[in-house]
Amino acid sequence: MDIATIIGIIFGFTVIVGAILVGGGGKMFFHIPSLAITMGGMLCATLIHFSLPQFLSIFSIIKKTIVVKIPSQIELIQKMVNYAAINRRDGALALEQEISKVDDLFLVKALQMLVDGQDPEEIRELMFLEIQYLQERHSNGKKILEFMGASAPAFGMIGTLIGLIQMLRNLDSPESIGSGMAVALLTTFYGAFAANLIFIPLAGKLGVYSKSEMTAREMITEGICAVARGDNPTAVREKMHAFVSQGSRKEVKVTI
Amino acid sequence: MDIATIIGIIFGFTVIVGAILVGGGGKMFFHIPSLAITMGGMLCATLIHFSLPQFLSIFSIIKKTIVVKIPSQIELIQKMVNYAAINRRDGALALEQEISKVDDLFLVKALQMLVDGQDPEEIRELMFLEIQYLQERHSNGKKILEFMGASAPAFGMIGTLIGLIQMLRNLDSPESIGSGMAVALLTTFYGAFAANLIFIPLAGKLGVYSKSEMTAREMITEGICAVARGDNPTAVREKMHAFVSQGSRKEVKVTI
Amino acid sequence: MDIATIIGIIFGFTVIVGAILVGGGGKMFFHIPSLAITMGGMLCATLIHFSLPQFLSIFSIIKKTIVVKIPSQIELIQKMVNYAAINRRDGALALEQEISKVDDLFLVKALQMLVDGQDPEEIRELMFLEIQYLQERHSNGKKILEFMGASAPAFGMIGTLIGLIQMLRNLDSPESIGSGMAVALLTTFYGAFAANLIFIPLAGKLGVYSKSEMTAREMITEGICAVARGDNPTAVREKMHAFVSQGSRKEVKVTI
Amino acid sequence: MDIATIIGIIFGFTVIVGAILVGGGGKMFFHIPSLAITMGGMLCATLIHFSLPQFLSIFSIIKKTIVVKIPSQIELIQKMVNYAAINRRDGALALEQEISKVDDLFLVKALQMLVDGQDPEEIRELMFLEIQYLQERHSNGKKILEFMGASAPAFGMIGTLIGLIQMLRNLDSPESIGSGMAVALLTTFYGAFAANLIFIPLAGKLGVYSKSEMTAREMITEGICAVARGDNPTAVREKMHAFVSQGSRKEVKVTI
Amino acid sequence: MDIATIIGIIFGFTVIVGAILVGGGGKMFFHIPSLAITMGGMLCATLIHFSLPQFLSIFSIIKKTIVVKIPSQIELIQKMVNYAAINRRDGALALEQEISKVDDLFLVKALQMLVDGQDPEEIRELMFLEIQYLQERHSNGKKILEFMGASAPAFGMIGTLIGLIQMLRNLDSPESIGSGMAVALLTTFYGAFAANLIFIPLAGKLGVYSKSEMTAREMITEGICAVARGDNPTAVREKMHAFVSQGSRKEVKVTI
Repeated sequence: MDIATIIGIIFGFTVIVGAILVGGGGKMFFHIPSLAITMGGMLCATLIHFSLPQFLSIFSIIKKTIVVKIPSQIELIQKMVNYAAINRRDGALALEQEISKVDDLFLVKALQMLVDGQDPEEIRELMFLEIQYLQERHSNGKKILEFMGASAPAFGMIGTLIGLIQMLRNLDSPESIGSGMAVALLTTFYGAFAANLIFIPLAGKLGVYSKSEMTAREMITEGICAVARGDNPTAVREKMHAFVSQGSRKEVKVTI
Repeated sequence: MDIATIIGIIFGFTVIVGAILVGGGGKMFFHIPSLAITMGGMLCATLIHFSLPQFLSIFSIIKKTIVVKIPSQIELIQKMVNYAAINRRDGALALEQEISKVDDLFLVKALQMLVDGQDPEEIRELMFLEIQYLQERHSNGKKILEFMGASAPAFGMIGTLIGLIQMLRNLDSPESIGSGMAVALLTTFYGAFAANLIFIPLAGKLGVYSKSEMTAREMITEGICAVARGDNPTAVREKMHAFVSQGSRKEVKVTI
Repeated sequence: MDIATIIGIIFGFTVIVGAILVGGGGKMFFHIPSLAITMGGMLCATLIHFSLPQFLSIFSIIKKTIVVKIPSQIELIQKMVNYAAINRRDGALALEQEISKVDDLFLVKALQMLVDGQDPEEIRELMFLEIQYLQERHSNGKKILEFMGASAPAFGMIGTLIGLIQMLRNLDSPESIGSGMAVALLTTFYGAFAANLIFIPLAGKLGVYSKSEMTAREMITEGICAVARGDNPTAVREKMHAFVSQGSRKEVKVTI
Repeated sequence: MDIATIIGIIFGFTVIVGAILVGGGGKMFFHIPSLAITMGGMLCATLIHFSLPQFLSIFSIIKKTIVVKIPSQIELIQKMVNYAAINRRDGALALEQEISKVDDLFLVKALQMLVDGQDPEEIRELMFLEIQYLQERHSNGKKILEFMGASAPAFGMIGTLIGLIQMLRNLDSPESIGSGMAVALLTTFYGAFAANLIFIPLAGKLGVYSKSEMTAREMITEGICAVARGDNPTAVREKMHAFVSQGSRKEVKVTI
Repeated sequence: MDIATIIGIIFGFTVIVGAILVGGGGKMFFHIPSLAITMGGMLCATLIHFSLPQFLSIFSIIKKTIVVKIPSQIELIQKMVNYAAINRRDGALALEQEISKVDDLFLVKALQMLVDGQDPEEIRELMFLEIQYLQERHSNGKKILEFMGASAPAFGMIGTLIGLIQMLRNLDSPESIGSGMAVALLTTFYGAFAANLIFIPLAGKLGVYSKSEMTAREMITEGICAVARGDNPTAVREKMHAFVSQGSRKEVKVTI
């Protein structure tokens, strides 16, 4: 549960809607045809840009920005130090029973290769291949949200152009100019609002998540390779510490 | 047949044309000289930018975004696992009869080298050279569409400037101001519409296709090299699994 | 003679000038002081940005976008296959008489090294150094045109600001507002027109040429190195085919 | 204490506030709802983009741009030259007493490895891993400030759109047009001001700091590795001099 | 003395000032408070972005764009060919007397290493380290000017916003609208002018200089390494020719 995303969206809506209500004329800001141009145009452009399965994954992508859980780096260091201790004391085969305690499929695969007695370089190569293609898959979601963030203001502007052209037809009735132009500007407002409060920040959040997950996987790779080389727990800890800031380098001890 | 591209274009036109008709004055939005400035200028700039053969390939490029077919990753893994099984059981020469069953010229070339008993590293090198230059050829179509997407709004603005300058000549007849400015804005509307609903998303689709095709070719390269090294079917499958998400890693078994 | 560049420029001018004449007031669009601000300012900025020899090369750069001739890739493959045949049949020294038939100084240098019996790796290294620095020299012309394409609209906007400020001085004579603003907008029009129809597309054309020339040189390097390694004509052809699309891979046979 | 940041912010505020007061109507420029839209919207978008711990680190990041202290490059060279002298005279173990004189934890770790007699390549590898991940952690703060710098003007524009739409509702009272539009423009002013005087320059300062710190750490790595290889003080000094400009290459002599 | 920079600045000012004088109202374009907002704001933002020593180096950076002298590439090739001849005839030690004839500290260092009999690979490594860090130091000046070029229009826009808001306060006196808006636009004019005629082109010039200097240093490195490997003058000349265009490859002969 990512509390920051939820707070940000709720407060953001509150601030903007509040400002509209304070200024008056709130009803004016809700206009279905304007919403249809901006959001409809943006969704169609997204559909043309991406493949159907990618487009349909938008909701699961947005969901991911709210519910994803990042593994703790300290816990990862602790695990690696323990594996090193077990490996030195009882040999790699003793790690087999650790596999069942692990949820993360990536770590399971790494441990399995360790137990199978594969070469550290071979493990690293396969793990890096896996990390590399995961990164590509991850970047897809980010690209969709970024494209939506770029497309929404563009269709907002297209809507405003349509509104302006229609308004300019009957300049002779000065009273209709104001409301016509107000409606024309609505689509630009919708586009800017959706892009800057929703799509662009959510794309950023996906990037932040993706990076943490990548770092966690690089830590697992480095750790498992160090264990496979037979490093002692202290050496493994030293190597893992490069990944975390000096402030959070707590003394990790073997707990098994 | 890419259903997403077709749906996106049809719905996108429907949304925008619908919004215009609802607002009234639809006839006003169809103005041949404005269309000529925006599209003519954009096509001339594209002709100057690219060579004649590249320019003439625009239609086949656009066609490609609708009809291209991406190879299934799971099928590719299945094929590679089968090749590994045949190779282990009957030797590389037995793969010769598989070549005739394959359509993809890239896979044919890879299999041929495998049957010819070439070195895995040699195969990989030649395959990567082929992938690299294919990528360059692919990026050409994307660049043309991207340039058109950047050029259309620019000529839209040039048309609007021409219209504004002409309108400002006779400010003394206030009635003509409105319609003059409406016409001036039309070119900006055409440019923004063509760029944001057609050219930019189609360029994106080409990029999505190009990437899938590249991944498929990298999978073929990795798979054929693994087979050439004499890996067993399970090892080949493990290696190929790095390319697909954990959700779609079905158990692939030897089917030959 | 690049027919695309010439057609593009002629048609582009026709479209824009035609649109101006159709709308009326063509005389108004020709205003020397506005032209002086936009083009003069842009040329001065270019002079400050680049060195004097680079600046003076603008005309030869523009000329190059019209008259350059790209070597045919199929011909190159044909040549390399022939060289391989000669090399296998009569030895590298027999290639000496081929040198005199070649115009391209790059190919001459490569053949000379082949005849001199230099090591393939040594040839590749020197050729790549040459390609790398040619690329840097090539990119200069592109950068100048790109800077002019970015600078022209900026000075157009500066001219418009000057015109607007001058117009706003005497808002009391409403008749002069229209013509004053029309003149002010002219510089923006000049800048946008020059950038989008001339400088940006010409910079693109230079990039397209540069890339083709680079590919041709990479093909020569790969081909000569393969010949130097003593590859047979078929192997050389296979290697060269990676550079061209599958559609244009004609059967090339030894013609000597 | 970074005097430049403080002077820049104080003078920047003075210049802008002074210009407002000179022009009159200073009170008009302070408008709580406009401030709430621009800053509130920007903070909410930042909250959605980043994780909660990253968001909460904004203040410590801003503090860092004012109080951070960059190590002197000349002092670093002096230290490395001394270490080389001690190492050549008394062996690596004699460097153990130098560790206690050093504050920088990175240098402590490097010296410890040197004293432990680790291989130069091993030291370099671990140090580079540490530098690489520090760089990633550093770039986070810069990204947050850059996002705020991009988001503030966007929400400024959103606020202006809301204000314009509300103003256009009652165009019939011409007196309210001026003040309505003035208020509408305020949010754009706030956004542009905050981005261009605060967020973008502070992000730049963080980048400048990060780069100096990276260079210092690269100098330590190169220096310690040279000492570990047993280079003499002169050779170490020559190597370190590559990092500093020729003007500041003072003659450094062994001072121990 | 870079004549292009001086001509460009003088002519650029002449063109813009001339256009202002022709249009009339030249006095209006000189407004101290507007100048203070644009330039003061820009300088304060630069001060916040960079460190104090970097900020204070602005003048020496600007001076550099006018007075710097680029070494001639042909002369460099001539020198390297001579060194190769001396080295082959009298041995590396005979090059010692050449060192005193050289001004460039980089070449002095390279020659010194050659005379000291260091390994070619060792020379190359140290030279490349030096080139790499010089490049980083060079890019600093460019970054400062680029930031000023991006910041000046931003503060111009901030000034215009302030002016517009102040003007909108008293819309009731229509006569003041024109002059108020003219003054408001002045800051945007100042910002655009300073950025597009001064800062952006000067940043470009620095880049052009930096690149020529880098190429010269790469030529020195390649040349000295070739001499150190004992290449004959002809081979050295061939290698150096890769750096210059085919048109300027004059026959260089040993002149010592």
